[in-house]
Amino acid sequence: MNSFGRIFKISIFGESHGKAVGITINGCPAGIEISETNFNFDLQRRKSGSTGTTTRIEDDIPEILSGIFEGKTTGSPITIIFKNTNVKSKDYSRLKNHLRPGHADFVAKNKYSGFTDIRGGGHFSGRLTLGLVAAGVIAKKIISPIKIKAKITEIGGSKDFEEAIKKAIEENDSIGGIVECTINNMPIGLGEPFFDSIESVISHLVFSIPAVKGIEFGSGFASAKMTGSEHNDLILNEIGKTKTNNAGGINGGISNGNEIIFKVAIKPTSSIGKNQETFNFETKKIETLKIEGRHDTCIALRIPVIIEAVTAIAIADFKLILNK
Amino acid sequence: MNSFGRIFKISIFGESHGKAVGITINGCPAGIEISETNFNFDLQRRKSGSTGTTTRIEDDIPEILSGIFEGKTTGSPITIIFKNTNVKSKDYSRLKNHLRPGHADFVAKNKYSGFTDIRGGGHFSGRLTLGLVAAGVIAKKIISPIKIKAKITEIGGSKDFEEAIKKAIEENDSIGGIVECTINNMPIGLGEPFFDSIESVISHLVFSIPAVKGIEFGSGFASAKMTGSEHNDLILNEIGKTKTNNAGGINGGISNGNEIIFKVAIKPTSSIGKNQETFNFETKKIETLKIEGRHDTCIALRIPVIIEAVTAIAIADFKLILNK
Amino acid sequence: MNSFGRIFKISIFGESHGKAVGITINGCPAGIEISETNFNFDLQRRKSGSTGTTTRIEDDIPEILSGIFEGKTTGSPITIIFKNTNVKSKDYSRLKNHLRPGHADFVAKNKYSGFTDIRGGGHFSGRLTLGLVAAGVIAKKIISPIKIKAKITEIGGSKDFEEAIKKAIEENDSIGGIVECTINNMPIGLGEPFFDSIESVISHLVFSIPAVKGIEFGSGFASAKMTGSEHNDLILNEIGKTKTNNAGGINGGISNGNEIIFKVAIKPTSSIGKNQETFNFETKKIETLKIEGRHDTCIALRIPVIIEAVTAIAIADFKLILNK
Amino acid sequence: MNSFGRIFKISIFGESHGKAVGITINGCPAGIEISETNFNFDLQRRKSGSTGTTTRIEDDIPEILSGIFEGKTTGSPITIIFKNTNVKSKDYSRLKNHLRPGHADFVAKNKYSGFTDIRGGGHFSGRLTLGLVAAGVIAKKIISPIKIKAKITEIGGSKDFEEAIKKAIEENDSIGGIVECTINNMPIGLGEPFFDSIESVISHLVFSIPAVKGIEFGSGFASAKMTGSEHNDLILNEIGKTKTNNAGGINGGISNGNEIIFKVAIKPTSSIGKNQETFNFETKKIETLKIEGRHDTCIALRIPVIIEAVTAIAIADFKLILNK
Repeated sequence: MNSFGRIFKISIFGESHGKAVGITINGCPAGIEISETNFNFDLQRRKSGSTGTTTRIEDDIPEILSGIFEGKTTGSPITIIFKNTNVKSKDYSRLKNHLRPGHADFVAKNKYSGFTDIRGGGHFSGRLTLGLVAAGVIAKKIISPIKIKAKITEIGGSKDFEEAIKKAIEENDSIGGIVECTINNMPIGLGEPFFDSIESVISHLVFSIPAVKGIEFGSGFASAKMTGSEHNDLILNEIGKTKTNNAGGINGGISNGNEIIFKVAIKPTSSIGKNQETFNFETKKIETLKIEGRHDTCIALRIPVIIEAVTAIAIADFKLILNK
Repeated sequence: MNSFGRIFKISIFGESHGKAVGITINGCPAGIEISETNFNFDLQRRKSGSTGTTTRIEDDIPEILSGIFEGKTTGSPITIIFKNTNVKSKDYSRLKNHLRPGHADFVAKNKYSGFTDIRGGGHFSGRLTLGLVAAGVIAKKIISPIKIKAKITEIGGSKDFEEAIKKAIEENDSIGGIVECTINNMPIGLGEPFFDSIESVISHLVFSIPAVKGIEFGSGFASAKMTGSEHNDLILNEIGKTKTNNAGGINGGISNGNEIIFKVAIKPTSSIGKNQETFNFETKKIETLKIEGRHDTCIALRIPVIIEAVTAIAIADFKLILNK
Repeated sequence: MNSFGRIFKISIFGESHGKAVGITINGCPAGIEISETNFNFDLQRRKSGSTGTTTRIEDDIPEILSGIFEGKTTGSPITIIFKNTNVKSKDYSRLKNHLRPGHADFVAKNKYSGFTDIRGGGHFSGRLTLGLVAAGVIAKKIISPIKIKAKITEIGGSKDFEEAIKKAIEENDSIGGIVECTINNMPIGLGEPFFDSIESVISHLVFSIPAVKGIEFGSGFASAKMTGSEHNDLILNEIGKTKTNNAGGINGGISNGNEIIFKVAIKPTSSIGKNQETFNFETKKIETLKIEGRHDTCIALRIPVIIEAVTAIAIADFKLILNK
Repeated sequence: MNSFGRIFKISIFGESHGKAVGITINGCPAGIEISETNFNFDLQRRKSGSTGTTTRIEDDIPEILSGIFEGKTTGSPITIIFKNTNVKSKDYSRLKNHLRPGHADFVAKNKYSGFTDIRGGGHFSGRLTLGLVAAGVIAKKIISPIKIKAKITEIGGSKDFEEAIKKAIEENDSIGGIVECTINNMPIGLGEPFFDSIESVISHLVFSIPAVKGIEFGSGFASAKMTGSEHNDLILNEIGKTKTNNAGGINGGISNGNEIIFKVAIKPTSSIGKNQETFNFETKKIETLKIEGRHDTCIALRIPVIIEAVTAIAIADFKLILNK
């Protein structure tokens, strides 16, 4: 349930306002150099603090509990935790019955019969993605020289990100965005037909990231408007280089050696400062909810590094299965 | 690899021009009434023959090998096969080196070192979806009264499907489309946080269907252009009915009881009658390829019932895990 | 449930008196030569007909439905079925309420609420092991030059097998036995710590064979009576050859390069010709049951080849995970 | 690899002399009362300190990192760690080349190309079973009123345990034993045919416990010497109570409602104070090895609670799959 993968296997745990969040990674080959500082760059990219992201500043310090010895992976499970230190639980305590729209509060309350940890989203918190980023750092080492790069291409429908964010902040609102991810230096033949197609596995992981609402590979939704003669990528040479890349580097679920490219739609942050009219389960009436606390104006800004991470995790698993 | 699911578990096998294609279903509860005629309606929907679909007419007769006794499921694995009877392998034999653009020919040749069954796409053939449709018929019985309905909403970017198809046929070309799928009567609480979110599992299965290039839930890509105050679905009452449904019936990966809705982008059929300039691996030159044989002008027309099937499979698995 | 393995993955289906029994094998590398005649030798070893085994003679002809093309594996799922041709269902029909002691009749009736296929044990039949033997033939090719050899070492507590069987036949009774299995040419390092130890995986598969009641590796139960100084296998040279082999070739769940050896206890066949006093669920009384039909006096005689098969399946999976 | 289970899923991590060992448990239902003190009784049973067990006294304090909120399980993953505080790594440092017979040192060195954590057995240490015991405590709550009870029945082949241990201590040697485990109040119908038979799953988990060399269910190895008329358990009444219990409460891999009973063979502790003549990989000669440090004279004494734990884990998983 909270685990994924066949050879390179991850398992996440933790709650936003509990003792810690973390991840266990199984199937990592022995002998890969890893130090706690290796995680800094990607964790920093994920971190809050810049314009448009929450002012909650966690230290986000990875603590390696197992699987690394004398600076190298041992082949045994790697567990990395992040202690929750900067927790202000009182911000959330009154939201037990007046549930935040767009969040998992309502489904969690129902699914777990009221036993869920409601503080800060609990186990549904975006803070759980810290472990994904950490596993991504390790996965990127495994898949080298394959290179994964994700970036924001659009915020609130605009290419002028700063303006869009400024406007949302002024209105106490939030805003969505598009992330594009490319994978280069892909060997031919990763992925498996049908249920372990590259698209299946990447989309599976990408949709596990909170706030993702859509994904498309290659020409994606535009391909639905194309003809076959436009869409087919003609092969140019022996190593399968294609003239166009409408397929996004994947045929029949398998990498064809061209660049893999996909785009991900990120919804606007659910928590907004603006008043919202929503049902109060205590009073049984629709009432005004004002969410206090610290929020991201645009959660999409923090997501590229997470998409890179889950993509690296997917590719590492495919690679270890094939040993290519 | 060719299997999926945790409790309701499917495993597909077969090649387009081999002896048979089929599926094994594990985890189906005992006592469900199933006869071979139950499959007719959905198999007919998937079948070729209408305008825009291939003129290859297989009988598509399901043969139940196991798991059904005296008209009811026994709780043991159900294996259903479809013999390949109307096979014209000679149409394909010369494509060993002049590979069809858009198909898995190139990746299969590389991945399996030339040992793949090249006839008619082999194991990569859309014919493998017969088993999915059969499993979908059983899954739909399990999930009742949950109702799944998929339909074409757009062909070649147009709502006038007939015109778009007519034009493509005239040009010896093919054309893509959009399928929309809805799930009604959903209980609250199906799905699991993170890696077994409803979106993760449905997208995983949907991307295993050949020709799928994108998927979006609820407002999907449009949500990337929205603000939080527009996008958040305000809760109206105790059972979680929301004012809008931008979330597409899912929060935090879990069903919230509202209609689940998602859209799928289908690329144009790869096989087209038109000439294509593509690399010939024998002559080492780019040469004109003309694909003979029978093709779908618009494969999207056959896909709604397959999307219903994989969605039913996903929901059946979620339901059996929870016993709701 | 009816499937096993991580890379080399098997899935069995069928009932004793249904249309067919069979197996699907995923993860088999492409390019391995397989013809239907390759299965004959091991299927013959499993077959009934010799003294002490049932006189039901199935043809046991493997029919390959998928995954083999031009005599070689394609890398796609291999499905092999065995049609049930020599079925005498009438022998079993009256056993619906007067359940056979030692068989799964009672648990199947309860577990599947009466919907199970009761004829000849249905899905619980030893006939399902046909698929295991077929998969074993393929697995043995994959693991070469590793060699697996199982043999009977004891029947009814005696080394004089013929005498023990003769006596049981005279008394209309059945008799158990011991099978010993060795694995040679093992590379060092197969197996994974804890839950995928070699002992864990082999015992898992061995206990899926009907009639198995015990398994021990190396000195096994005798080791419980030994001291550490007797039991420890002293290492003699650089490749880890040990002076003794009390560990049975495994330390910490991992192969140490010495011969792997284990013994399996097989109970006497449950079906016997002798009268048995057991509860009749229709009359609610303890009544005399006489089982008609064809039975093995000593099912253990047919089991060595099945143990070889599941062991080869386990080792193939370990080997493909490591690519050693 | 280091995880097991389908619904109730465990994943272990850690090394003997690293920062911590621990376990993550997925699939635990919400609302079960758990406090850190609940673990004391079983952890105490596992603990070292009594005659015949090592004098290394860890505090073995469980620290719950996630999944428990206000004293109850939340339905999210439960991670429990045990920090390693009483670590004397210097005892082990010189064993890098003079490998301890009976231990995993040699296979670990080979499998992980020398990158394994060699201190105190590293990830192969029996200390990893702390997590199993903790998960067992939770599993026992889930399966109530099913009762699991394991006990030592034999030490060094003798029923007089004290005498056998005293003798081994005097000789600086170690000694093995037999553990018997019973499961009572079992519902009928847990377990799945073939690969998820109760015997398969329990044996899989039991063989993951270090030092286990054999397992037998019901009459086990003795059944190999019996006739069918002796071995068959005649049914006495409507709820399936049997006259004898040679089957050990299991038919066809499924629980039949009678007591489940199995016996486990535990080898003598590998670490002994006595001199051993074994290969030194540095000098390339067979040399005398004297293992310093703290060892269990009879590791079997600590194993009953671990066998109870893994059995409870197996049964919890079966129960949650069926919801019986």
